[in-house]
Amino acid sequence: MPETERHFGDDLANAVERTGNPVVVGLDPRWEQLPTGFTGSDRADFSTRADAYQKFCKEVIDVIAPLVPAVKPQAAFFEECGPAGMAALAQVIAYARTKGLLVIFDGKRNDIGSTAEAYARGILGRDGQSGWEADAVTVSPYLGADSLEPFVKIAGSRGAGLFVLVKTSNPGSHMLQDQQVEKGPIYRRLADYVESLSAETRGKRGYGIVGAVVGATYPKQLAELRTVMPQTWFLVPGFGSQGGTAKDVAAAFDQRGLGAVVNNSRGIIFAHSKPAYCERFGDSLWQEAVEAATREMIAQLRAETSAGNLAAP
Amino acid sequence: MPETERHFGDDLANAVERTGNPVVVGLDPRWEQLPTGFTGSDRADFSTRADAYQKFCKEVIDVIAPLVPAVKPQAAFFEECGPAGMAALAQVIAYARTKGLLVIFDGKRNDIGSTAEAYARGILGRDGQSGWEADAVTVSPYLGADSLEPFVKIAGSRGAGLFVLVKTSNPGSHMLQDQQVEKGPIYRRLADYVESLSAETRGKRGYGIVGAVVGATYPKQLAELRTVMPQTWFLVPGFGSQGGTAKDVAAAFDQRGLGAVVNNSRGIIFAHSKPAYCERFGDSLWQEAVEAATREMIAQLRAETSAGNLAAP
Repeated sequence: MPETERHFGDDLANAVERTGNPVVVGLDPRWEQLPTGFTGSDRADFSTRADAYQKFCKEVIDVIAPLVPAVKPQAAFFEECGPAGMAALAQVIAYARTKGLLVIFDGKRNDIGSTAEAYARGILGRDGQSGWEADAVTVSPYLGADSLEPFVKIAGSRGAGLFVLVKTSNPGSHMLQDQQVEKGPIYRRLADYVESLSAETRGKRGYGIVGAVVGATYPKQLAELRTVMPQTWFLVPGFGSQGGTAKDVAAAFDQRGLGAVVNNSRGIIFAHSKPAYCERFGDSLWQEAVEAATREMIAQLRAETSAGNLAAP
Repeated sequence: MPETERHFGDDLANAVERTGNPVVVGLDPRWEQLPTGFTGSDRADFSTRADAYQKFCKEVIDVIAPLVPAVKPQAAFFEECGPAGMAALAQVIAYARTKGLLVIFDGKRNDIGSTAEAYARGILGRDGQSGWEADAVTVSPYLGADSLEPFVKIAGSRGAGLFVLVKTSNPGSHMLQDQQVEKGPIYRRLADYVESLSAETRGKRGYGIVGAVVGATYPKQLAELRTVMPQTWFLVPGFGSQGGTAKDVAAAFDQRGLGAVVNNSRGIIFAHSKPAYCERFGDSLWQEAVEAATREMIAQLRAETSAGNLAAP
């Protein structure tokens, strides 16, 4: 039973409609790629790096918060810096929330039953309910249904959500995900289960709180999964640096321009070093590059997908 | 190319032989189950809980460090307490290392290529090489081979190791892991891949640095996997509270008593509240209960498995 009136599926729909686009900015701070103003030394200790990550991500948030519905901090890069990095992550999440962004904790966490519960309790839920106060978390499914259920239950009670890895964007995703089992590949077996969880948690806007990660780099599978998962939000990674284009992700959306959010990490936060932007902006104008890259991605998605049916903000 | 002479597969063999047993103590601090001396209030904030977890785990380590080869802190329970919990986890890992224990960071982490690298760089490796300084990490395989390779590479260069989830101990593990694909279930497909990684990284003692998580609750599969994974260390969860017995795990070992380590978390660290111990020891003598439960598990494994072939310490 929901203890809250918030519903992650509805909140995401509202945020996408409010901003007029489905862009998620991935916060993947990488030391070597930070603008030079953030890196004093090549051999900085973990604490120095963590401070730089925090400062950099907050400045990225200042630029993009008026433009997009959500951010997705990648836990790995913060965790790489040890406890100081995790403290920085918490600060970044809190800051994003004060700026009105939904926050997807990209941790690909999971474990068996009661341990999965600890992850869900710790990561999901605002206002002191959890240790990290995220709105959603990415979850790995190898452990099976009883590892996903605690996330669904706790997310539901706290107005939060989750995205289950279904068909990931990397080349090696074929190894397990594409293995043929009865009635099709493993990812289809999982897709049917995730859709059933979404259906059970369906909100007013037609989508549940249990989403699926489906890579932009596999457009055919994306289209197939949209058909068989009509009530499931998709979190689509692989746009930009990994090769996915606006055309590749078009099939992920419903006619309203809802149903999918598309992540871009390096292509936005490190736009200053991309060929398309480095001459125009360069290192010292990195924030302008972030804004330009965000606006360009928004324009591409609005031109090439049904996100164009969303009202412009 | 290894930059170090340490080899996780060899180090684990040496630690098991030195202590004369294959017991891993799982450090899964749960607030409700801590001995009363550690919990001042039912509604403690995250920071208070994190401090209690740190103190409790260090006292557990004081008891078990002379007895067993390794500990396995469960990241979820620390992460549940937010950044303060992660700081506590780092302290617990460092303390375990000073007491001579090998440390397996149970995070079931993973992500695609360069992000997996960040996890591996952050978690694995001693002496300032990493943010967490663990000797090994548990890894989830749903993303495929290219998500595992960065862990293998970084572990190899730092004298560390990893354990890939193959057949997990929970009831729901059938959902994906037991799906029939060509030549058998998914977990067998994965087992063959993990064994190939172990073979490539084989050390002087006959085992590689890439282990497999195989649950004590599935003895038949454990025996099958031992046969097809002769060079792979097994990390066997599910002993004790989850129902696995010493007889169930007997097939996991080679004739020397090597090849597997068996984890017990609640059955040891919260032994004071188990029916078998609570009358004898109770809450105030919880450390005696931890020691008794550890010694009992060691005796059971030595009696019922080839761990009995190890020299007594």
